[in-house]
Amino acid sequence: MSVIPPRTLKGFRDYLPETMAVREQVIETARRVCRSFGFAPIDTPALEYSEILFGKGGEESDRQMYRFEDHGGRDVAMRFDLTVPLARFAAQHVRQLGTPFKRYHVGPVWRGENTQRGRYREFVQFDFDSIGTESLLADVETLVVVHDLFAALGFERFTIHFNNRSILNGLLEKLGLESEAVAVLRALDKLPKIGPQRVSDELHHTAGTSAEQAKSILALAELTGSNDEVIAALPEIVGDSSQAQKGLAAIEEVLSGVRASGIPEERIKVDVSIARGLAYYTGTVYETFLGDLPDIGSVCSGGRYDDLASLYTKQRLPGIGGSLGVDRLIAAIEELGMVDASAAAADVFITLFVAERVGDYLSLAAELRSAGFSVELYPESRKLGTQIKYADRRGHRLAVIIGENEWASETAQIKVLATGTATEVPLSELAQRCRNLLEEAG
Amino acid sequence: MSVIPPRTLKGFRDYLPETMAVREQVIETARRVCRSFGFAPIDTPALEYSEILFGKGGEESDRQMYRFEDHGGRDVAMRFDLTVPLARFAAQHVRQLGTPFKRYHVGPVWRGENTQRGRYREFVQFDFDSIGTESLLADVETLVVVHDLFAALGFERFTIHFNNRSILNGLLEKLGLESEAVAVLRALDKLPKIGPQRVSDELHHTAGTSAEQAKSILALAELTGSNDEVIAALPEIVGDSSQAQKGLAAIEEVLSGVRASGIPEERIKVDVSIARGLAYYTGTVYETFLGDLPDIGSVCSGGRYDDLASLYTKQRLPGIGGSLGVDRLIAAIEELGMVDASAAAADVFITLFVAERVGDYLSLAAELRSAGFSVELYPESRKLGTQIKYADRRGHRLAVIIGENEWASETAQIKVLATGTATEVPLSELAQRCRNLLEEAG
Repeated sequence: MSVIPPRTLKGFRDYLPETMAVREQVIETARRVCRSFGFAPIDTPALEYSEILFGKGGEESDRQMYRFEDHGGRDVAMRFDLTVPLARFAAQHVRQLGTPFKRYHVGPVWRGENTQRGRYREFVQFDFDSIGTESLLADVETLVVVHDLFAALGFERFTIHFNNRSILNGLLEKLGLESEAVAVLRALDKLPKIGPQRVSDELHHTAGTSAEQAKSILALAELTGSNDEVIAALPEIVGDSSQAQKGLAAIEEVLSGVRASGIPEERIKVDVSIARGLAYYTGTVYETFLGDLPDIGSVCSGGRYDDLASLYTKQRLPGIGGSLGVDRLIAAIEELGMVDASAAAADVFITLFVAERVGDYLSLAAELRSAGFSVELYPESRKLGTQIKYADRRGHRLAVIIGENEWASETAQIKVLATGTATEVPLSELAQRCRNLLEEAG
Repeated sequence: MSVIPPRTLKGFRDYLPETMAVREQVIETARRVCRSFGFAPIDTPALEYSEILFGKGGEESDRQMYRFEDHGGRDVAMRFDLTVPLARFAAQHVRQLGTPFKRYHVGPVWRGENTQRGRYREFVQFDFDSIGTESLLADVETLVVVHDLFAALGFERFTIHFNNRSILNGLLEKLGLESEAVAVLRALDKLPKIGPQRVSDELHHTAGTSAEQAKSILALAELTGSNDEVIAALPEIVGDSSQAQKGLAAIEEVLSGVRASGIPEERIKVDVSIARGLAYYTGTVYETFLGDLPDIGSVCSGGRYDDLASLYTKQRLPGIGGSLGVDRLIAAIEELGMVDASAAAADVFITLFVAERVGDYLSLAAELRSAGFSVELYPESRKLGTQIKYADRRGHRLAVIIGENEWASETAQIKVLATGTATEVPLSELAQRCRNLLEEAG
């Protein structure tokens, strides 16, 4: 019989152990940091009613979604983000859960998008949100979570850029362009990519701005300097709009809270060019950039919204959240060589030689595991070279080699796989010596 | 505008924080145990070509699957287990990965099954497999992984029942019923549920056995006693079939390895009634039962197969694996009251009173987090009762209460939320006192 060629769908991929180990570390770190701030985990189904995901009208975006009819004739679709399911979830369970409700949620989402530009059709998101509070303390906390998360992941150089939507809205008010807010946001969002001249052109075409208006908007977006300098320069640009003043006060309060939380000044930046394309943000908006890989764009973004779940409930649910692009972050970690090669490997690899001694090898493996090591025992009695080659490929750190002579003399050889150096030790000291060698290797 | 009623699809459900915290603990424990044996993580897509999942012919089971045509006109389906994707994955990547290949894989799977009997259409599986080795050491290790996993989850009373397919095959050979193996397996699989008489009836109808043959088969399946007694009684029942002798030798070798690994005798049981319905198992088969909840059936099962991926490659890939029913296990943990109520909660809850002191509260929260505590700071300055009620509902353990007087005198009140007792302590001793109180509470 001919075989079926093994393959994945276009835009989908397998995670092999090395990449998957990084993914597990990223997600476990994000979980740990979120939990350390009192966020609790939730999950929602991969499939939902299409009406829930797309609203009653919304046909526009449907083409990119995995939407079909199930066996019961229901119009269903696979979730395309974690925000819409959160809105549905909050509307459904908020009475039981109460507010403030702080949750994190990690899982795959699906979009049948064009796979050019390295986009995948299945990717993992990690979202966290504080729902049911308008307190700016939640905004501060969100930025501190992002900071602690990237610090915990081992990044040294990263900056969280934040802004407040009211600044731009205040300026648009002053310019008489309130009704063009979305078009302006979309144009500004492209500033880092296409530069000021083309943004100015786009503002003219999509928002109908005059050259003078575009100049004011770009003066705002291009404002740079230290956090205190930017804050000092803003009043002159945005004028006396009460909205802009509210935004400015919020920025000052958030910055002050972030500083009180001990975040180093170089990791937080008041950046009035941050727009975020999405229309539903109403207050704080932020993006996070890696100092060593600025070109990959923001690796963690989010903002404050006035009302999360108005599609599903009349209860107003304000909040603030963020979304971590797990796959983009994995790519960054791999590109920066930050992968811990032994993450998917065992501390100790035990070679197997004397078939009649299988019980002794098993017992030794169990003993080392009880002592806290991860231990892989090779399952077959083969040539040393074959076994060591296997251990090397797996990235194991130490190999414990015990043949008939060693069993007789109650000794073992420990080989540091990275260097090839071997030491003979009494079996009774094996655990301690392995610990020492692992610590030396760092 | 009227709202869209928030709801999930029939057979699907949300995980609220309390259940989700248990799920995270189960999965994290399973990951940790698997890693400690050198298993590495992988992941595969939720969607695959239908041909991959169902084979070239297989229409029979398709009705229960979520199968549809994607935008590119591809016949696709959502994975219904993790075994078929593993087979495809192994066929595709085994050259790169080499053997033995030990992987674990956790994720949701989907089946459009009847939702009576409390079945869900989306559920989480945790699978682990050792591929590319016929060594019985891999069988031993599989059972030790299962043991260590349930012990790590905190179960005291559980038993892994194992058998070897060759025992029954040998008996069938002796009885001239080799060609009826699948029908016999299916009937025996029902023994615990329907009893010997009805199994005997079914054997007669589906496998065409005589009364004498059924009696022999049931004598085997109903054999009980200590592990050594069962092993001693087997030769007489199965006769001198070479297959049965091979099975018996394998059982003895596996038992001896499990004992050498230090597994308590009461947690491992040679049980020749274990059949496992699936035809592809060829050697060791096992199921795991909880002593306090025997009726929920096996919570972790698996076995040895001769060839994992013959649909996708001509390379023979023997191996052994297991599958943990995560959702069944969560239900068991909840039913047995083993849930750690504070799993989704923070160690320390900080109430907020003095709005002008927000920076001090934030700084204190950051300090306690640096000291290793998980800390939730209430985001709004509200009545004490409101804040404490929130902390109680969240399951937080300690509340730290600091008002204007306490800030002035550099003190704090620590309230143990479970008992309501409060202590006043100097701020400089806060971390240490919180640690003591958390340790006392256990």
